[in-house]
Amino acid sequence: MTGTLYGVGLGPGDPELITLKAARVIQAATTIAYPTLAGGDSFARAIAADMIREGAREIRMDVPMTTAREPAQAAYDLGAADIATVLDTGEDVICLCEGDPFFYGSFMYLNARLAARYKVKVIPGVTSVTACAAVSGRPLVARNERLTVLPGPMDADELRDRIAGAEAVAIMKVGRHLPKIRAVIDGLGLTAQASYIERATLPEQVVLPLAQAPEKAPYFSMILLTKGADPWL
Amino acid sequence: MTGTLYGVGLGPGDPELITLKAARVIQAATTIAYPTLAGGDSFARAIAADMIREGAREIRMDVPMTTAREPAQAAYDLGAADIATVLDTGEDVICLCEGDPFFYGSFMYLNARLAARYKVKVIPGVTSVTACAAVSGRPLVARNERLTVLPGPMDADELRDRIAGAEAVAIMKVGRHLPKIRAVIDGLGLTAQASYIERATLPEQVVLPLAQAPEKAPYFSMILLTKGADPWL
Repeated sequence: MTGTLYGVGLGPGDPELITLKAARVIQAATTIAYPTLAGGDSFARAIAADMIREGAREIRMDVPMTTAREPAQAAYDLGAADIATVLDTGEDVICLCEGDPFFYGSFMYLNARLAARYKVKVIPGVTSVTACAAVSGRPLVARNERLTVLPGPMDADELRDRIAGAEAVAIMKVGRHLPKIRAVIDGLGLTAQASYIERATLPEQVVLPLAQAPEKAPYFSMILLTKGADPWL
Repeated sequence: MTGTLYGVGLGPGDPELITLKAARVIQAATTIAYPTLAGGDSFARAIAADMIREGAREIRMDVPMTTAREPAQAAYDLGAADIATVLDTGEDVICLCEGDPFFYGSFMYLNARLAARYKVKVIPGVTSVTACAAVSGRPLVARNERLTVLPGPMDADELRDRIAGAEAVAIMKVGRHLPKIRAVIDGLGLTAQASYIERATLPEQVVLPLAQAPEKAPYFSMILLTKGADPWL
């Protein structure tokens, strides 16, 4: 009997937004795994820190800071091999994931490598999209509206076309793409309907109308565009 | 000092997918509020049932079963007035919301009526979209992919156009629209990439390839379309 690999969603950052199920599984974990950016701190581990057992084995996957695929793939190959070694002894491995494991999460790299050979269970988490809507105080989608989630790195022309044809829009991974995204939204005359949010639900959270957003945005920032609705719905 | 209105996301159905924060707020609540469909049971209340204090005041909003807006608006007007009466005494009111309050949630009807006069706080929850992805075992969006969330009631032509221009797609509120949606996805040749999920994370959950979906779908059902990815990412 081999162990089970759990992909556990931790939510957007506030440790209280961890689900009861995730908390139970983490508290019982004897081996946890998580990615770090180039050997730095792990945001996922920091969210769950108070729930990790003393003495739990920790498998770190040091993902290099580059947009090239091969070095990242090598890091996940290595991590998957370490995880497999533990699963082979019959022990479960709990992989800590910011947000939700299957929503832009790096857990899918492990799932791709291990799901054919081991049992994998995914515990969904609160995504940054609805966390940002919650802290902005503006409903995201109602009734029969459409929601489009776009990645910030998308080029300006495609971004413009996608936003123009959309209703509610969430733009993820804003970071260094902020000036480009702002220019597109300005060009569409939608700036007044856009909110800028960084590090939602963390103590250092920032929520501003897009017009007042800072010049520089961190990776964990988002822009929400809501087209406005009848206030009485 | 008036009380605070909390919109509390409860997640997709499994009570263990409630967040620690939502659990804390519900357990402390002296007044809860929730909608029911035409005076029937409340799914939201059922999810949180084990956390509700004995003797808590309950404000039920009986939303009539019709697609006409006015009767539903009247129900929320009445509910908002009842809630305001409690908030005016300085007591908080905890509104129970399936999924996430600002993601297709009826909480926005209360927010629209009360946010100008009272403090409103929203606790985000796990949405059915990522819960369905988790139970289907198929990652929803990776890297720089786009996600489009569409409501099932959308007409066939628009549905076809939106799906054709999309990458990952989640179709919500499938219910009686299943035959129409299936025909559109079949017509686009995408059936093999589509999963059908009903009542995700509940004991009666169903997860099937779309080709094997039943003839009739309940309201709480979803179709996920993922365009497939390099298995090693």
